[in-house]
Amino acid sequence: MRQVTIYDIAKEAEVSISTVSRVINDTAPVKGSTRAKIEELIQKYNFQPNAMARGLLKNETGIIGVIVPDLTNPFFPEVLAGVEHEAMQSGHTFLLSNTIGDYAKESEYLSIMREKRVDGIIFMGGRINLKHCEEHLAQELVQFANVIPTVLVNGGLRGTDLIRVAADESAGTALAVQHLIELGHTGIGFIGGEVHMTTTSIKLRAFRKAMKDGGLKVREEWMLPDSFSIDSGKRQMHHLLAMKERPTAVFCVNDYTAIGAIKAATEAGLSIPDDMSVVGFDDIPLAHHFIPELTTVSQQANELGKTAVNVLKAMMNKEKVKKLTTLEPQLIVRQSARSPRK
Amino acid sequence: MRQVTIYDIAKEAEVSISTVSRVINDTAPVKGSTRAKIEELIQKYNFQPNAMARGLLKNETGIIGVIVPDLTNPFFPEVLAGVEHEAMQSGHTFLLSNTIGDYAKESEYLSIMREKRVDGIIFMGGRINLKHCEEHLAQELVQFANVIPTVLVNGGLRGTDLIRVAADESAGTALAVQHLIELGHTGIGFIGGEVHMTTTSIKLRAFRKAMKDGGLKVREEWMLPDSFSIDSGKRQMHHLLAMKERPTAVFCVNDYTAIGAIKAATEAGLSIPDDMSVVGFDDIPLAHHFIPELTTVSQQANELGKTAVNVLKAMMNKEKVKKLTTLEPQLIVRQSARSPRK
Repeated sequence: MRQVTIYDIAKEAEVSISTVSRVINDTAPVKGSTRAKIEELIQKYNFQPNAMARGLLKNETGIIGVIVPDLTNPFFPEVLAGVEHEAMQSGHTFLLSNTIGDYAKESEYLSIMREKRVDGIIFMGGRINLKHCEEHLAQELVQFANVIPTVLVNGGLRGTDLIRVAADESAGTALAVQHLIELGHTGIGFIGGEVHMTTTSIKLRAFRKAMKDGGLKVREEWMLPDSFSIDSGKRQMHHLLAMKERPTAVFCVNDYTAIGAIKAATEAGLSIPDDMSVVGFDDIPLAHHFIPELTTVSQQANELGKTAVNVLKAMMNKEKVKKLTTLEPQLIVRQSARSPRK
Repeated sequence: MRQVTIYDIAKEAEVSISTVSRVINDTAPVKGSTRAKIEELIQKYNFQPNAMARGLLKNETGIIGVIVPDLTNPFFPEVLAGVEHEAMQSGHTFLLSNTIGDYAKESEYLSIMREKRVDGIIFMGGRINLKHCEEHLAQELVQFANVIPTVLVNGGLRGTDLIRVAADESAGTALAVQHLIELGHTGIGFIGGEVHMTTTSIKLRAFRKAMKDGGLKVREEWMLPDSFSIDSGKRQMHHLLAMKERPTAVFCVNDYTAIGAIKAATEAGLSIPDDMSVVGFDDIPLAHHFIPELTTVSQQANELGKTAVNVLKAMMNKEKVKKLTTLEPQLIVRQSARSPRK
């Protein structure tokens, strides 16, 4: 059977589409008997009003725009799954743009989204993760957000009032490092991440603080930022393995670099976690299935996506929202970290 | 510096935007001296015309719509990376919709994409992967494709003339099974996939044929379709391990189920590949980094995305295109399959 549309309902109820829309969206009073007839038809056909039906009367398109930097990093599809779940609850659909970290591309997508009249956007990665975002890029986003409700996920722009939803990456890093210290590690290295990005600088700072709080010295030669790829994890583990003195544990900026680090160590004949402990960050779906299973920090990616949509919906409804909504990360203890050999 | 726009070029050249657009798109003659002046400015500012600048004169938006079923399956982000790469070459941007296998959602996105005037769409998964697609869903897509250039990736609709780009999953399955047979396996199982989807039924058929061609019997109790998740791979491996007689090798419908199968076997105390060989399908980025590294079949996901965009561009330019463009899959021999123990 063909899917029933708002047009079918209107036709059978012998009313205008606007009247059906008014009943669906509860935006204006409709005569009792007419309302009853429409509601009966909605029930009869199990009619699911789609985004457009909802938006027909309100000045809305029912579309949420989402801008992400890199879909091949499995963290982002997980956030999107949460966005999707929550958006569907209210009949919203969403359009996604993948910018592969290209700021000009971000600008272009912002203007396309504006032109296509999205009701709001969720912005992840790219310029909002830069330690020093150029003023014109920041201003562009501020101006956009003045017109269209905008939520930044896991990022921000200094000196602006943009609404943010973020996992507390600093607290997450502390959890991971404290776990390694409690296991008895005293020599701990740091692998991966790009230093000009806040997601890295936050972790670097939190790492140093957790080490200090634990009474441990940070060995600068074991601080090895690079990038976020599996290969960068491999590269920096090779680097570590070539040193005379090695740490007994490493904290990696994300699960991809942790997987790379484990792989390189295993290929070099080490056994993980017996010979070295490795902790990741993100809890991507594969972390649980990797061999050994990855001890990591969950940013609650799915929840992050859901929360972003809920904050955005509140903004679209002109409700007051907090400037920053923070999600507490969780340490996920699995197999890749244990006490060091005596 | 702020990015230079078509408006800036027009202003400095003291011509209209349409004139600049004509030069960029080469759509109509422009006086030689004017053209020279505009080209000089384009070079001076290293101006990259964006999609909208390109589309100003042509009746195009420069936007390609992409419909995918599930971004958390890493095969799709890989295809998208190829789409993205190729789309950017010609200044196209793209809007993505994730339908999580919901056919009503597919319909909704099709109408949104139409309303938003995309220049063409690339359709992956969902209804075009069904063994039996309902007529009204098929007709909806046919009608859409009559109006807007449409390319189906790794799927099709029987009885229609829709343009397709697809990896030869049948040939890929044969490669994997032949590899196992050449290694000396005689008892081979099949894990994962949903039987009502063509991506599974194609592989099931090819598996049976390759076994027959190799002179081997298919043991029905070892044919274990389920779904495409890691957990389904685990579940079916547990199932196999509980049997009195087990195969010495399994072919899995994708890398996720292969990873699940290896994980379950390892947890049960088996060593992969020494005690059992496992072959996957897709060659997701992690296949190369899993321990053991996964022997698998590459569908050339990235190339598939690029090819889809190129076919779509040809269609948008009203060029004649083949009804079906096939990509040859490749066997990627790594560590998860070896000769069986004597």
